[in-house]
Amino acid sequence: MKDIFLSNHFIYGGDYNPEQWLDQPDILKKDITLMKKAGINTVTLGVFSWSVLEPQENEFHFEWLQEIIDSLYCHDIRVILATPSGSRPRWLAEKYPEVLRVQENRMRYLYGERHNHCYTSPAYRERVRIINQKLAENFKNHPAVIMWHISNEYRDECHCPLCQNAFRNWLKSKYQSIDKLNHAWWTTFWSHTYNSFDQIESPSFIGDKGLHGLSLDWKRFVTDQTTDFMCCEIKALRDAGATQPAVVNFMDDYTGLNYYRLAEHVEYISWDSYPAWHQQPDIQTAYDTAMQHDLMRSMKQKPFFLMESCPASPNWMNISKIKKPGLLSNASLQAIAHGSCSVQFFQIRQSRGGFEKFHGAVIDHYGEADTRVFREVSELGKALKQIKEITNTRVHATAAIIYDMESRWAMENAKGPRNEGLYYHEAALKSYRGLRENGLNTDIINMDQSLEQYQIIAAPMLYMFRNGFEKKLKKFVEHGGILIMTYWSGIVDETDLCFLGGTPHGLMDVLGLRSEEIDSLCDHEVNHLLPFTGNPMNMKNSYSCKHLCDLVRLKDAEPLMVYGDNFYKGYPALTRHKYGKGIAYYVCADAEMNFYHDLYNRIITENQLQQIMTDIPDGIEVSSRSGEKYEYLFIQNYTDHKISIRIPKNTEILWGSYDGGVCGYSTVICRKKIKEI
Amino acid sequence: MKDIFLSNHFIYGGDYNPEQWLDQPDILKKDITLMKKAGINTVTLGVFSWSVLEPQENEFHFEWLQEIIDSLYCHDIRVILATPSGSRPRWLAEKYPEVLRVQENRMRYLYGERHNHCYTSPAYRERVRIINQKLAENFKNHPAVIMWHISNEYRDECHCPLCQNAFRNWLKSKYQSIDKLNHAWWTTFWSHTYNSFDQIESPSFIGDKGLHGLSLDWKRFVTDQTTDFMCCEIKALRDAGATQPAVVNFMDDYTGLNYYRLAEHVEYISWDSYPAWHQQPDIQTAYDTAMQHDLMRSMKQKPFFLMESCPASPNWMNISKIKKPGLLSNASLQAIAHGSCSVQFFQIRQSRGGFEKFHGAVIDHYGEADTRVFREVSELGKALKQIKEITNTRVHATAAIIYDMESRWAMENAKGPRNEGLYYHEAALKSYRGLRENGLNTDIINMDQSLEQYQIIAAPMLYMFRNGFEKKLKKFVEHGGILIMTYWSGIVDETDLCFLGGTPHGLMDVLGLRSEEIDSLCDHEVNHLLPFTGNPMNMKNSYSCKHLCDLVRLKDAEPLMVYGDNFYKGYPALTRHKYGKGIAYYVCADAEMNFYHDLYNRIITENQLQQIMTDIPDGIEVSSRSGEKYEYLFIQNYTDHKISIRIPKNTEILWGSYDGGVCGYSTVICRKKIKEI
Amino acid sequence: MKDIFLSNHFIYGGDYNPEQWLDQPDILKKDITLMKKAGINTVTLGVFSWSVLEPQENEFHFEWLQEIIDSLYCHDIRVILATPSGSRPRWLAEKYPEVLRVQENRMRYLYGERHNHCYTSPAYRERVRIINQKLAENFKNHPAVIMWHISNEYRDECHCPLCQNAFRNWLKSKYQSIDKLNHAWWTTFWSHTYNSFDQIESPSFIGDKGLHGLSLDWKRFVTDQTTDFMCCEIKALRDAGATQPAVVNFMDDYTGLNYYRLAEHVEYISWDSYPAWHQQPDIQTAYDTAMQHDLMRSMKQKPFFLMESCPASPNWMNISKIKKPGLLSNASLQAIAHGSCSVQFFQIRQSRGGFEKFHGAVIDHYGEADTRVFREVSELGKALKQIKEITNTRVHATAAIIYDMESRWAMENAKGPRNEGLYYHEAALKSYRGLRENGLNTDIINMDQSLEQYQIIAAPMLYMFRNGFEKKLKKFVEHGGILIMTYWSGIVDETDLCFLGGTPHGLMDVLGLRSEEIDSLCDHEVNHLLPFTGNPMNMKNSYSCKHLCDLVRLKDAEPLMVYGDNFYKGYPALTRHKYGKGIAYYVCADAEMNFYHDLYNRIITENQLQQIMTDIPDGIEVSSRSGEKYEYLFIQNYTDHKISIRIPKNTEILWGSYDGGVCGYSTVICRKKIKEI
Repeated sequence: MKDIFLSNHFIYGGDYNPEQWLDQPDILKKDITLMKKAGINTVTLGVFSWSVLEPQENEFHFEWLQEIIDSLYCHDIRVILATPSGSRPRWLAEKYPEVLRVQENRMRYLYGERHNHCYTSPAYRERVRIINQKLAENFKNHPAVIMWHISNEYRDECHCPLCQNAFRNWLKSKYQSIDKLNHAWWTTFWSHTYNSFDQIESPSFIGDKGLHGLSLDWKRFVTDQTTDFMCCEIKALRDAGATQPAVVNFMDDYTGLNYYRLAEHVEYISWDSYPAWHQQPDIQTAYDTAMQHDLMRSMKQKPFFLMESCPASPNWMNISKIKKPGLLSNASLQAIAHGSCSVQFFQIRQSRGGFEKFHGAVIDHYGEADTRVFREVSELGKALKQIKEITNTRVHATAAIIYDMESRWAMENAKGPRNEGLYYHEAALKSYRGLRENGLNTDIINMDQSLEQYQIIAAPMLYMFRNGFEKKLKKFVEHGGILIMTYWSGIVDETDLCFLGGTPHGLMDVLGLRSEEIDSLCDHEVNHLLPFTGNPMNMKNSYSCKHLCDLVRLKDAEPLMVYGDNFYKGYPALTRHKYGKGIAYYVCADAEMNFYHDLYNRIITENQLQQIMTDIPDGIEVSSRSGEKYEYLFIQNYTDHKISIRIPKNTEILWGSYDGGVCGYSTVICRKKIKEI
Repeated sequence: MKDIFLSNHFIYGGDYNPEQWLDQPDILKKDITLMKKAGINTVTLGVFSWSVLEPQENEFHFEWLQEIIDSLYCHDIRVILATPSGSRPRWLAEKYPEVLRVQENRMRYLYGERHNHCYTSPAYRERVRIINQKLAENFKNHPAVIMWHISNEYRDECHCPLCQNAFRNWLKSKYQSIDKLNHAWWTTFWSHTYNSFDQIESPSFIGDKGLHGLSLDWKRFVTDQTTDFMCCEIKALRDAGATQPAVVNFMDDYTGLNYYRLAEHVEYISWDSYPAWHQQPDIQTAYDTAMQHDLMRSMKQKPFFLMESCPASPNWMNISKIKKPGLLSNASLQAIAHGSCSVQFFQIRQSRGGFEKFHGAVIDHYGEADTRVFREVSELGKALKQIKEITNTRVHATAAIIYDMESRWAMENAKGPRNEGLYYHEAALKSYRGLRENGLNTDIINMDQSLEQYQIIAAPMLYMFRNGFEKKLKKFVEHGGILIMTYWSGIVDETDLCFLGGTPHGLMDVLGLRSEEIDSLCDHEVNHLLPFTGNPMNMKNSYSCKHLCDLVRLKDAEPLMVYGDNFYKGYPALTRHKYGKGIAYYVCADAEMNFYHDLYNRIITENQLQQIMTDIPDGIEVSSRSGEKYEYLFIQNYTDHKISIRIPKNTEILWGSYDGGVCGYSTVICRKKIKEI
Repeated sequence: MKDIFLSNHFIYGGDYNPEQWLDQPDILKKDITLMKKAGINTVTLGVFSWSVLEPQENEFHFEWLQEIIDSLYCHDIRVILATPSGSRPRWLAEKYPEVLRVQENRMRYLYGERHNHCYTSPAYRERVRIINQKLAENFKNHPAVIMWHISNEYRDECHCPLCQNAFRNWLKSKYQSIDKLNHAWWTTFWSHTYNSFDQIESPSFIGDKGLHGLSLDWKRFVTDQTTDFMCCEIKALRDAGATQPAVVNFMDDYTGLNYYRLAEHVEYISWDSYPAWHQQPDIQTAYDTAMQHDLMRSMKQKPFFLMESCPASPNWMNISKIKKPGLLSNASLQAIAHGSCSVQFFQIRQSRGGFEKFHGAVIDHYGEADTRVFREVSELGKALKQIKEITNTRVHATAAIIYDMESRWAMENAKGPRNEGLYYHEAALKSYRGLRENGLNTDIINMDQSLEQYQIIAAPMLYMFRNGFEKKLKKFVEHGGILIMTYWSGIVDETDLCFLGGTPHGLMDVLGLRSEEIDSLCDHEVNHLLPFTGNPMNMKNSYSCKHLCDLVRLKDAEPLMVYGDNFYKGYPALTRHKYGKGIAYYVCADAEMNFYHDLYNRIITENQLQQIMTDIPDGIEVSSRSGEKYEYLFIQNYTDHKISIRIPKNTEILWGSYDGGVCGYSTVICRKKIKEI
């Protein structure tokens, strides 16, 4: 069922909370009229409905939901139905206090806000099982219900006794003996040796916060426990006979969980995208958001859902800026361009009260269609119908960035070499943008994924090498791959123990060098990268660099650029080393964006890599999806002025207005026949 | 008794703490000599004396106080006697731990500092009742004691079980049923529905902080509970037969309580004024302080007391700047100018130890009269005698600002549209200054007060409309009033639920427009207001605006100015609409001060409103009080250079030096016969 | 034994943690080879070894330690053996929870980090006694063990019931009666009177934080309790028959303890020096570090140990900057120059895991000798052998700075006149640098030390006068001494009660003036000091000043400089007064560094004080040690360029390269025969 639905339309809709308006049937009726007017075909129900579905323990009220789903279905609107665990009723916390989380300081929270439940609590798991099962029993066969939305934005952690105990068992199962744990965590330092698993406490600012192995394993445990909780949620649905696919919604660059582990257990993933538009050049925000889209796509190497986005402006940012005309369309089509099969909003109708009463909505408090936001939403609804042939296409990437959560956890938790900012995300983004600006579709993968389909891989700040990842990279280069590695890579193993014998561990021969020291710069300081005279890559410009400067000792790598300042002026700053059939580059310092743009330009040119488009002007993002017959190019202008751009030959405009240029805040979609090989 | 005293003198004095020096009678004696030298006629006693008055439970020592009051009276110095509840003794907390407050995190405070007592605690109320009654019994007939100073600077809140319970009862009484509460607080959002009043907990960062209806009602409860506590204090005095008036002292722009509720139950209000002079242009500080004076006067529409101010510099600010010569006199006379019947200091004699040992005093640690501060205090004492004919006059205002605490609570607690600063106080101050600079005495009133006596009303950022306030405003305009309303007004009702159907709620016809979207600017961003070509108000200049920009859809309002930047360049930014016999202006954005100066200038000119003075130069503040025969003008220079200024005809100098100009940091008081009508 | 060892060598080595590598004997073996290569002659063992020495209660394992000490001794490497109390095992906290500290908020910490043990706990004291005694029994006669390192960096405080009780007893013993305490703490203010000692609670942000007398006595108690704990540690060693000297290691400018009290009970003191090089001009960092060296030397007026320093960069600073070539040598020889008998590192071998795994080490994770750091460490090892004749010399100082911890505690805890920075350390450093730049070796002493050996004494911001210190200073001047006193001096007595009758207390006749008011400036504000026309000191330049400006009333002092701005323009800003055989200067404001340089230059010239060198160029620090025959001058360049400097006549170069100039980041040591008198 699902696939038929998905392959014919882009899903268009968003979160809808009719339970807030049950006493005003006129409003519910008007909502459907307005949804149809806007071209909405799917809504997400039930995300925060628990207290209405089950107002007292074991007293269930599903009639209202049945009625609304029926009514939506009558109007050909489909439903994504949520399990309500993201926000539980008060009676549950009152009756089972164990469901309330305990803070790092070991004090229990009161009932309140959302996401404040212990994932370990048997009581909570049981109540979730029951409500999920009931939901499934009621709606598993409803033709409107196309998908299960599992909870909402899983996040954060709990330090209660139940979690402590589960953590101890998790560790026992991982390490078997306390001696192995002691070695892995290097507890002899500061005399922190454990005598037994019973002494273990989760990391806390009132206890151990500097025992990095503990912190790292705790984060792994939190992910595993959350995943286990999610699996229980899904099992309840399946046990009740529901067969619709399950989807989970993730957040932007969220570091509290390793999403890869959750992604394994659902049919689809989705994410909630709330970029802070108009607070820096929008093209920068666009690339940052694009990287998240690509991460979501790469995680399961399949289409994802844009589960939430804001039609106007969210209310919880420091500054709620309204979107400039055209941006809503650009941002929504960008998701499609990067592999989404939906455009969904939080929210269809604005809440009258509570925390998010000023969060933007398709239908606001005014409640009519004659608003700028509603007009733009409606235009987008039309556009999605006009481009529906793209539904069955996929993004094909030849480049990948290694962007690894466990490595990030370990690196950002470590002390040194820079405790006021390592800029990992920024480093990945600079490589990503460098590749994208030069016309390569790019995947964002982690260390466990396959490297085989890529021609070029960037591994910025890959602090941890896990499961012999260095061997995988080595093989990649040997077989002809192009590797770009940077400073602060290959430092620790999977338990955060430093590699002995030199770094980047296991790749010193591949890179032709050894990292000897790393210098840290204050926020206001810069160094420079200057071209090394006669460098074979013909690097010509100078660039600034900040934050971290790696001092390497070359073995047989060639210097391409050198430092311009400090006592290490003249030391290598960018090197190249041919290894096997491939090439390995090493970037020593946190260089400015222009450097990455030029570096990838040279690498791509030298190695004659296939680009989806060339000469992409600044301010424009280009990405592509390919089907059996056509490659579809999305050309998006993120400035407020028109930009001239040359479209590849034999390309026809599918959507949008093109006259040798693309207007400010607008998108052109064109298609090009794929050559038969 | 009181009125005779008050009508003949300005009260001059301050807090005096002889209990710290009981072992040094020579010091006590010298204090009186120095007070007389300085012209002091009244001191406030007993504010922190509880531990000396009742060193152990039920062991009372009033002799020392009797002796000091007698001695002061002998020297013709009157006494304002405080109830000592602001700072309780240790034995009380030791014996009745329930008197200690509980923090928002539900942990009880230890004994310490001040203002750390539960207002609900029956034990505390009982001990306060006893000590107050004893004080009254002892001093109700003393001729020196002219007033009761109730506690000190009531403030803050307690989250103990007793308070939780009282809060639940308060809510029961307000809402009657839990369903009504659920609707008012819109608890269906996030599934926060209450099943019973017993589930209610005060707002907490470890529980509910984003349930805005809860937060708003909690603040109302805290005010009501504090008011109830204050009433119990006063009742104890009255029950014991004391008949002197009661006064309570408020703080500068304090947002923890709705002072209006407390003001209802006392004969006089007063405030403690500690402006941060010399940290911005002093004229700005002067207007800010003036607005507080006017707020205090308007609250009961009668004279108030300047209960505390610092003769030198307070010690608890980040930076303790000493006052430039002349400023002490200016700041003190400003209070008089705005309707105070006193100038009082904290403190007469500086403490030798403790938290405020470096807080400025009339008599400092050095202890002699040959200091700059003592000299200026003495000169001021003389001045107050010289202008005592002003005692029986009042301030008459034709303008008012609506400045409403409940609206402010709701607005500042809400999420969106700008969570890093809405600048409500600043917006009110800009309107206030605009009116004052153009020579209008101005009241600062809330939504519950009468509008009848005003010709012009500014309602900046009036987020909440309570009790049909929109109808009151509508009637005001219909009957010929001039209304200046701004962005972010009429958004929610009294339980913080958003109005449906368009905003400003109920005034769209009066204003001739509807607000459609509101844009939020980053701190560094500006937009501009440009004159709309041919606007009938002849607005000519351009102005910058910041923070918030309202995008309105005009119905029949006239645009006077338009935006200069962003995609809404050319959209209306200032509008005018004639309605009934009046006019309603709408200011769309947070414009700079100059805009308000010019806007009010035009409005006043167009409508021929009566000004107390015209052409007031920058750096000078002018205000007036009127009696039966004379209007008294206070002309105060808040710069360090002389400023030329023309005084109205037929005006004679009562005090100060005038030769066509007013010297730096000095005041000229003149009087003008009031024309017989 | 010790003295023979110390007089023949500089100790060279550092912390070594072989217990982390017991399963890798090859590494332990290689370590010794590398130590010998680097010239290391002493290592510190056992600092964090408790969990290996006593892995379960009463199960002791000393064999491994014995073996390592034997092995080191075989290679002629000596051992400083630590008591392990700085970091206790988990079993100890598990079995005796009382050993865990309680936070200021009265919640107990979990086990974790270091320095988290109650100094009062009888259980902890007993376990420490046992392990110390066992260590002493085992190693008291080992010829390698030359010294006992007592615990590690004592610090911080505990608020547990045991400590509360000990504090109450400490107060009882100090004050005898609660009345005396009430008077000393001036508790009548805010009605804080204590009825009994049992009501006392340590200062807390949830209780009393503004009762300054309480806070001051609490800090004294914490020092006394820590000292008592340390004495118990030493007693355990002595009781077991150990006779080697004891050393304790202090931290840089640590304000949590009054180190003077601990210093009384050990044979040697030492400190751990981690300056933040390359984050400001290095010469400034050098003077700051030099002041600490001089403080450590002056505390016991004898040689001290540089117990820890980093051969590369520490990992726990915000920014880990690597040292420029030459700086390691400069910084290490600077310690020697100022009186150290050692250069020691934390650490010999870098840890593989844990909090400090990236803290620099002699042997890093790479593990070989071909690194820049190892090379520089080895060169320094050679240097220390080449200059070993300096071992038996001492620093002789004719100048002193009064730098008093109790005064600082009281001053920095007080409210006013400036709560966002008083800059006490900076004020002391400016005087220190002024003296040093003009060629005077300088001691850093507290109020209790003798003044007799000095010609010139600076007393910057000496807020508290304790034990009649004003009389000592008066006598110093009477007998011919030169005193430089500043603003904010002589304000309170030893219980933080303000002096009555004028300040600086007891010295108004010596200084010829009285302080009347003190103005506080915002961070961005400046005032100026201008020469007073015809001033007898011939002060010629103008200087800026910040933060605090004292307004004084002169009696018979001569003004040398006056203020340039604000209403006190023309008021005295620097004064001089001859008194007895001496002279007393008063600096009214926090002037810039140049002022102090010039002021001390004039004073030294006028009074013909003996300088160790004249005309010291900026960027160079010069200091000296003297033996029986020679005075040794250390000339250190803290810039990266060569600086010309004239060396005194009859001086020969002992170490380093001199050709009329000193190279960037390098040191020249020369010697000059001491004239026979």
